[in-house]
Amino acid sequence: MSDKTKKLKSIKLPKGFRASGVYSGIKGNNKLDLGLIFSERMTVSTAAFTTNQVKAAPVKLSKKHLRRSDIRAVIVNSGNANACNGKKGDDDALSMARCAADSLGINPWQVFICSTGIIGYPLPIDKIRNAAPNLASSLRVNGWKNFSEAIMTSDSVNKVASTQINFGNKKITITGAAKGSGMIAPNMATMLAFILTDAAITQSELKIATKIAVDESFNSISVDGDMSTNDTVMVMANGAAKNSVLKKNSRNLSKFVEALKKVMLNLSKQLVKDGEGVSKFVTIEVNGAATAKDARKVSKAVSESSLVKCSWNGSDPNWGRVIDAVGYSGAKIKEDKVDIFFGNFASAIGGVVASTPIEKLKNEVAKEEFTLRIELNLGNGSHRLFTSDLSEEYVAFNRLEYALKIQGH
Amino acid sequence: MSDKTKKLKSIKLPKGFRASGVYSGIKGNNKLDLGLIFSERMTVSTAAFTTNQVKAAPVKLSKKHLRRSDIRAVIVNSGNANACNGKKGDDDALSMARCAADSLGINPWQVFICSTGIIGYPLPIDKIRNAAPNLASSLRVNGWKNFSEAIMTSDSVNKVASTQINFGNKKITITGAAKGSGMIAPNMATMLAFILTDAAITQSELKIATKIAVDESFNSISVDGDMSTNDTVMVMANGAAKNSVLKKNSRNLSKFVEALKKVMLNLSKQLVKDGEGVSKFVTIEVNGAATAKDARKVSKAVSESSLVKCSWNGSDPNWGRVIDAVGYSGAKIKEDKVDIFFGNFASAIGGVVASTPIEKLKNEVAKEEFTLRIELNLGNGSHRLFTSDLSEEYVAFNRLEYALKIQGH
Repeated sequence: MSDKTKKLKSIKLPKGFRASGVYSGIKGNNKLDLGLIFSERMTVSTAAFTTNQVKAAPVKLSKKHLRRSDIRAVIVNSGNANACNGKKGDDDALSMARCAADSLGINPWQVFICSTGIIGYPLPIDKIRNAAPNLASSLRVNGWKNFSEAIMTSDSVNKVASTQINFGNKKITITGAAKGSGMIAPNMATMLAFILTDAAITQSELKIATKIAVDESFNSISVDGDMSTNDTVMVMANGAAKNSVLKKNSRNLSKFVEALKKVMLNLSKQLVKDGEGVSKFVTIEVNGAATAKDARKVSKAVSESSLVKCSWNGSDPNWGRVIDAVGYSGAKIKEDKVDIFFGNFASAIGGVVASTPIEKLKNEVAKEEFTLRIELNLGNGSHRLFTSDLSEEYVAFNRLEYALKIQGH
Repeated sequence: MSDKTKKLKSIKLPKGFRASGVYSGIKGNNKLDLGLIFSERMTVSTAAFTTNQVKAAPVKLSKKHLRRSDIRAVIVNSGNANACNGKKGDDDALSMARCAADSLGINPWQVFICSTGIIGYPLPIDKIRNAAPNLASSLRVNGWKNFSEAIMTSDSVNKVASTQINFGNKKITITGAAKGSGMIAPNMATMLAFILTDAAITQSELKIATKIAVDESFNSISVDGDMSTNDTVMVMANGAAKNSVLKKNSRNLSKFVEALKKVMLNLSKQLVKDGEGVSKFVTIEVNGAATAKDARKVSKAVSESSLVKCSWNGSDPNWGRVIDAVGYSGAKIKEDKVDIFFGNFASAIGGVVASTPIEKLKNEVAKEEFTLRIELNLGNGSHRLFTSDLSEEYVAFNRLEYALKIQGH
């Protein structure tokens, strides 16, 4: 057993949760493709969904179920997105909820449903139906490894993170899993993330905490700027840690938010690093924007510029392409106030080339991880975004038929 | 002499114009890098510029000169964009205008200036100053070939187009040249285009005609979605054809607009086809949008999706990625009303997969040129955009140092 496997096996699920992952045959290559999470106790849950107007059937159904509260289970399949399948897609999503509910002895509306994979192909619902009993009987407190594997599509590794905090003598656990790995864009991505906690918290506080944490993590990453039909970040809290319920504006709530953010940020970085064909992990820091919104616009434009991303791939500290993207970002800027740094080295000051020797800048961009800092010197708006380069491998990967790669058709 | 060269040599400049292109040493590889256009007669001129907030020095100066009217000459260098060079950049742009003016015996404010190439390096103005006399003495009525070569950067071929129309017994000529070839985005690109005509037309009518023609040509192409600091489309009319001045709402003006559009569209298509690493020329037609603006949003989102562009490169008729981009375009859409066609073949009808055999769709996308048609079935808004695939060659080309490729540094 490798160290990595050991670490995954030892990931602690919060109290009162169990998880599983099985092979149902959707992917058709003997890989796990169906995952389940179950909470023994009542939960409060919340989720952030794709803002794409084309929403997959499971997204629409999960939104509906979430409004009724007390979600007890999450069922997820990989290999097929169940998106753009019309009425049949809606029916299949409901069937999927029923499969999970029947095998767990709960109501279908207590099931949260996710699908990820290819768009526009009917979901092979019979495979899910056949696998459901085995999926339920496989639920384990150490089932997070299998679950996190079952949700993978083009991911090369499964992505998990966990942290613990103490409130007095009560230990709270927050554990998450996520999958990428193309179509990663601010405001969600082809990504699913599931965060479980045994903290006792109200629905409304969980909602606010999640919004804050998602904004600074999953909504601050970009691989290729595409936003998918299925993106979902789901957070479940079941109160099994028996802490006193986290109150609005309390110090403990702040601690919880920080811990939640830590887990989400950890997963977000894993998503970028495992993006298709990614060879560089780049942090873009924008400071001094007129507004926070402007800072976001700048980081988005730079992170989505093919020319900028290609230059990183070639370890080229090309600040001209950066300032070009800053200029068309839509944010308010003054050209002669823009400073651009690679790591700690200035490449442009006041909109013109800085005196830093080019070799120092090249060394910085040659690193596997570096920070590009853009100072607009106009106001107090800032934003930090995590992104990647654009490589020939990305194109090679995505020019092949998705169907061929993921589904084995 | 090849056929291509013969064709270029025979391109007719409109009456009263001469052009030239020489080697000044900016590119440092013996390639032509400095071009000049001169009109013997007074002109009316207009231009569309980049909307990037970071504007190169020549863009700022040309805007100023254009406001004074009677532009008589255009000087263009390639190999250096003279962008992001601060005060020195502004001084150099003015010096460049003076060089041209002195060697032609006109005023500096009668000179329109353009630069294209790498951002953030000082313009080698001495090389331009030294070459200016030779540039002026090389002006020829058949100098369009040399001029169109002198403005090239990463272009693999020079791009010219010409057409003629008759107004009674007066023959009007419209001749253009353009350069690309990365950073091609709607609302201009790293592109320069110069259109000359001997038509007699007022300043205000020329302005309107240019706006219409640019919107449907240069503002409707996309290679990589990046918008440069130097983009300029410039149109000069000198009246040498002695037609009666084109009047507002006249039939002749409409004919002129159509001819101008024809030349611009021809050049636009050449720009896309010669885009860096381009192997496919794709026309995106969006119909039935709620508004024309929405139709533009959809075509832009689809044309800028890396995933969609990679699928074209692999001849994969992947409509899932297309409808995904439609969904996040920001345009109003109804998923169950979206139809998607590759060529004449439906790949999705009403937001779900169509019954067309996949082989027929594959054959369509395998063509070097094909049309992707998206019907939103909501209203009367439509837009047509020309774009390309995203290839490994694009990345390979742009990961290398621009400076190394273009400047020979």
